Amino acid sequence: MLDGLIISIDAMGGDHAPSIVLAGIEYFLKHEGQGRRARFLLHGDEAQIQPILLKCPRTRERVEILHTEKVISMEDKPSHALRKGKGSSMWNAIAAVKAGRAEIAVSAGNTGALMAMSKLQLRMKRGVQRPAIAASWPREDGMCVVLDVGANIECDAAQLTEFAVLGEAYYHAIYKKEHPSVGLLNVGTEDLKGNAVIKAAHERLSQSQLDLNYIGYVEGNDISSGGADVVVTDGFTGNIALKTAEGTAKLIGAFFQEALNGSIWSKFTTALNLMALRRLKKRIDPRRVNGGVFLGLNGVVIKSHGGTDAIGFANALNIAIELAESDFLKVIDDKLDALHDEDDNIGFIS
Amino acid sequence: MLDGLIISIDAMGGDHAPSIVLAGIEYFLKHEGQGRRARFLLHGDEAQIQPILLKCPRTRERVEILHTEKVISMEDKPSHALRKGKGSSMWNAIAAVKAGRAEIAVSAGNTGALMAMSKLQLRMKRGVQRPAIAASWPREDGMCVVLDVGANIECDAAQLTEFAVLGEAYYHAIYKKEHPSVGLLNVGTEDLKGNAVIKAAHERLSQSQLDLNYIGYVEGNDISSGGADVVVTDGFTGNIALKTAEGTAKLIGAFFQEALNGSIWSKFTTALNLMALRRLKKRIDPRRVNGGVFLGLNGVVIKSHGGTDAIGFANALNIAIELAESDFLKVIDDKLDALHDEDDNIGFIS
Repeated sequence: MLDGLIISIDAMGGDHAPSIVLAGIEYFLKHEGQGRRARFLLHGDEAQIQPILLKCPRTRERVEILHTEKVISMEDKPSHALRKGKGSSMWNAIAAVKAGRAEIAVSAGNTGALMAMSKLQLRMKRGVQRPAIAASWPREDGMCVVLDVGANIECDAAQLTEFAVLGEAYYHAIYKKEHPSVGLLNVGTEDLKGNAVIKAAHERLSQSQLDLNYIGYVEGNDISSGGADVVVTDGFTGNIALKTAEGTAKLIGAFFQEALNGSIWSKFTTALNLMALRRLKKRIDPRRVNGGVFLGLNGVVIKSHGGTDAIGFANALNIAIELAESDFLKVIDDKLDALHDEDDNIGFIS
Repeated sequence: MLDGLIISIDAMGGDHAPSIVLAGIEYFLKHEGQGRRARFLLHGDEAQIQPILLKCPRTRERVEILHTEKVISMEDKPSHALRKGKGSSMWNAIAAVKAGRAEIAVSAGNTGALMAMSKLQLRMKRGVQRPAIAASWPREDGMCVVLDVGANIECDAAQLTEFAVLGEAYYHAIYKKEHPSVGLLNVGTEDLKGNAVIKAAHERLSQSQLDLNYIGYVEGNDISSGGADVVVTDGFTGNIALKTAEGTAKLIGAFFQEALNGSIWSKFTTALNLMALRRLKKRIDPRRVNGGVFLGLNGVVIKSHGGTDAIGFANALNIAIELAESDFLKVIDDKLDALHDEDDNIGFIS
């Protein structure tokens, strides 16, 4: 029997499963997870998992394999996954959370299927309409959390308000900051800016007496510059903002690479500068921000990028452990209740 | 009397007008504008402009000052500017285009006021609802044009379709590429993704028989990676995408700066690498992409960033000259007519 914090893993999810998943756990236990009492339920094909485990000594001592041969593919539609996916590695990973056998589920599999199965099995917290996906983005002095980054293409003001509460609690749980600032993403910071939904959410958040550090509207550049710790937006805008940021980071990185390798002379001096550049590379490594977290469910499910490697998967496990060790679910229960009580008091209808 | 291409300039618009405006013209004439037959109408306060002109020998020979003391401030609301702004430097700069005295107007002043005055004086092209603002963004092999980046917070499918036509003609005029590819910004590339407006625009563009190189949905990272030459989106999403990209570019630049200045050793090797880094700095210089262009009017108005310097203003003039030398306005007349004829034929109602 496993003791300590238990993470439920979809061992078969992602482009390079199960090898990357196991390598990710091994990496995690060797680095950030060293000394932590984390243990893992591995849902997947024992015949594929066992030979890989032979090369993962740390993982071997901390896992229990729960065999299933059924796998949800990256191409399966959510509706198909719901109809046919019961008993799959993804389904079972979530079911273990529902059954109380694990604190958190992690999968690098199909996002739509994972979201649909999570909703069906774990159900939403009282009053929450749909889960939001929260993602982290680096800035000079730490991290910014953006939500929603893709689950809710259209949102009403009540949802945006919920995202503010969920995002604040999440930021606190992961980055240990008291009263992180929360901003609403808009095209300008003046009160007149934005569409009706954003204005209604702004008014609702501004008049709230809850203990929420709401700072008003923020703009796209605030994600990277530290304008707010938590940036709230609908899933359409959030998804595009995050992918635009990723694309830009990649572009500027390529420009630097090119500049530094342009001539024999610059190649030579770059070689001398290798240590500094390595530190930098680590800093802007996209794997560091791997892991979108589904918020608003009765339980936590973390989506690792499907194409990530062991280090990226290990980072998703970092998030899982930070959340599992915190009282995050209890806190958002209380905060959402307070929000909805306040909604009732002021007669807020979105 | 001025001959050659004539650009009408709001000499008093922007945070550092008129000095930056004049320094921008001087820089332009010294560099990219050298040898071009561009001339300038300078609308503004002669008493402020004349002393600066003494230090701008190239500019002195190419300008005509049209005196006015009235100025629209950066804080004026568009409604106020419309009521009180007649005869201001901004108003007069646009009026010269309307009167046929100049090809294009350029202002670094208040965006909302400039948009409102442009609409009132120049009016929209037949069938166009509101102007779109087009902006350029660098990528490895050239530039991407994104529109709308802020004028239309909410758009219908007909507007997005118009933006596709306007953006294609603009890209061709500025970057001289035949049949630039046009993509519609979405949260995924599958047909099922997006909201009703985007799906309707996608369907409309997909079934068009016009000579438009429409490639379907693109994602945020395609702006930097070359996924499409022209990226079409509503003004809300476009504004946030562009500002997020700017913020990210700044952040990654700061990370590199820091890495390269981290130790004495890296400072030394960085000094050796200075040439390469200078080239790079030029490449990711935000001033290079200064200039948002209002598209869809009977005339062209270019908005330079209010806080830019001479080099940034000169870049807005580059865009002005490229457009003035092209048959851009004639082309979009024809293309919009063809689009609206096709709308009528297929019974497209947005």
